[in-house]
Amino acid sequence: MHKTQELYIQKIEKAMDSFLPSASDERKIVTDAMQYSVHNGGKRIRPILTLEFCRVCGGDIENALPFACAVEMIHTYSLIHDDLPCMDDDDLRRGKPSCHKAFGEAYALLAGDALLTYAFETLTKAENVSEEAIVRAVRTLSNLAGTEGMIGGQVIDLISEENTPDLDTLNRIDAYKTGALIKSAVLLGCIAAEVTDEAVLNAASVYAESIGLAFQIVDDILDVTSSTEELGKPVGSDDKNDKMTFVKLLGIEKCKAWVNDLTNRAVEALDVLPGDSTFLKDLAYALAERKN
Amino acid sequence: MHKTQELYIQKIEKAMDSFLPSASDERKIVTDAMQYSVHNGGKRIRPILTLEFCRVCGGDIENALPFACAVEMIHTYSLIHDDLPCMDDDDLRRGKPSCHKAFGEAYALLAGDALLTYAFETLTKAENVSEEAIVRAVRTLSNLAGTEGMIGGQVIDLISEENTPDLDTLNRIDAYKTGALIKSAVLLGCIAAEVTDEAVLNAASVYAESIGLAFQIVDDILDVTSSTEELGKPVGSDDKNDKMTFVKLLGIEKCKAWVNDLTNRAVEALDVLPGDSTFLKDLAYALAERKN
Repeated sequence: MHKTQELYIQKIEKAMDSFLPSASDERKIVTDAMQYSVHNGGKRIRPILTLEFCRVCGGDIENALPFACAVEMIHTYSLIHDDLPCMDDDDLRRGKPSCHKAFGEAYALLAGDALLTYAFETLTKAENVSEEAIVRAVRTLSNLAGTEGMIGGQVIDLISEENTPDLDTLNRIDAYKTGALIKSAVLLGCIAAEVTDEAVLNAASVYAESIGLAFQIVDDILDVTSSTEELGKPVGSDDKNDKMTFVKLLGIEKCKAWVNDLTNRAVEALDVLPGDSTFLKDLAYALAERKN
Repeated sequence: MHKTQELYIQKIEKAMDSFLPSASDERKIVTDAMQYSVHNGGKRIRPILTLEFCRVCGGDIENALPFACAVEMIHTYSLIHDDLPCMDDDDLRRGKPSCHKAFGEAYALLAGDALLTYAFETLTKAENVSEEAIVRAVRTLSNLAGTEGMIGGQVIDLISEENTPDLDTLNRIDAYKTGALIKSAVLLGCIAAEVTDEAVLNAASVYAESIGLAFQIVDDILDVTSSTEELGKPVGSDDKNDKMTFVKLLGIEKCKAWVNDLTNRAVEALDVLPGDSTFLKDLAYALAERKN
């Protein structure tokens, strides 16, 4: 793992612990559920992006930590609610019992609600960041996490399960469901560095959208080409669940070429950023070439 | 109904429609579910309090409308999630099918999530309010809606269903579950008027806490003394559901005296406010004397 990435993850874990509530009365079951789900071994890609975009734009990563953690809280809440019986009904998340299996449905629902609520409280904890920037962060995160972003993607995904989605629909599901939150992560990094230059914000968005889509296509490819051992989860699950994927629509070779194009597009966008973007370039390549 | 109250409700309904999203693609099912639940015939007490506290503190109520609607969105999401099968499992809300009965569980869950998310986006839409005030509003609302407020109350309520709560626990459930959001409503009104005077903010909190608790005690009394016709919903439901109430713990007479004390306490707190608080006085008395 890249040394910067390791350092960022350490900072994120520590900040997450300092921001999350820890009750000692009856409410402990929900603060425990929140902590359980936040520390589930995720890759922390979103908060890493927030910190690195802040740094590349000339900001101090310490100032961006609340924004980074807020994005990860939104991501975590979405996984908790996605796993609920009325949604995907998943008993396992990264090989561990999902939140509602560990704490019961009612407390999992509330833990998700609480993480979503806490994300916005956490944004207001940013120090040495202007109030104008915090308001922009609240606006950006709420917009990209709502019906015009992540939740919108979940709805389109649910609806499309009833028919067979075409390429355009798959694209939209991914752009909303996954892409929007990755976009919020990079934009919040820029905002923490007080960036207002539209060219920089646009370049950050292009990077986020490109790696977000590439990430999903790689997921679809690995589900066909990888082994359960290498992937760390059962392969062939898309086929088993009768799920439409980019690979089924386009074939593996076209998908690999598309991932290449998207990664190049992401890397080119970085030219507009003011600082050294080597780490972000390496990250884009690493995500494209990942084996799990 | 008081004339001011009628005017406020009109403004709130109109603002709510302008703030809520309305999708024309697959996402329509969730934006429809959000609108369905927001327009469910609620009394709008919380947003009315936001507008009136803003006015009494010398602010323009137009500026407070986004804050008022945000509080009502939080209230609405909490009702949607509360009615879900894994929580209270209620099929009806104000005589109409609850959100998950009308739209299905998955979409009700997402509609609740979306309203919670939208509440924070709506706070950022306040015009002629300083960015400092918007950040204070985000901090106040998220804190009082989270584990240290409303969600915390729901958790204590769920846990206490397993034993028989004592008076102290009932008090805490009410203070968190209902009181916290009413408190956020009055504080957001003050914040929209750019109030920073701690004495005024404290007085607003005392008013909110007092009428919030009185409201719950009156609910418990009416469940015993009213008729189903007058109340508009079945009486005796607390007994039927084996639910511990203030009336069961203290008896009706003590409860009535307590409501009187709380109402007087609320009214006295208003003396500290800079403007004419007649409407807020009348509202406290009306809530104490209400028949449904």
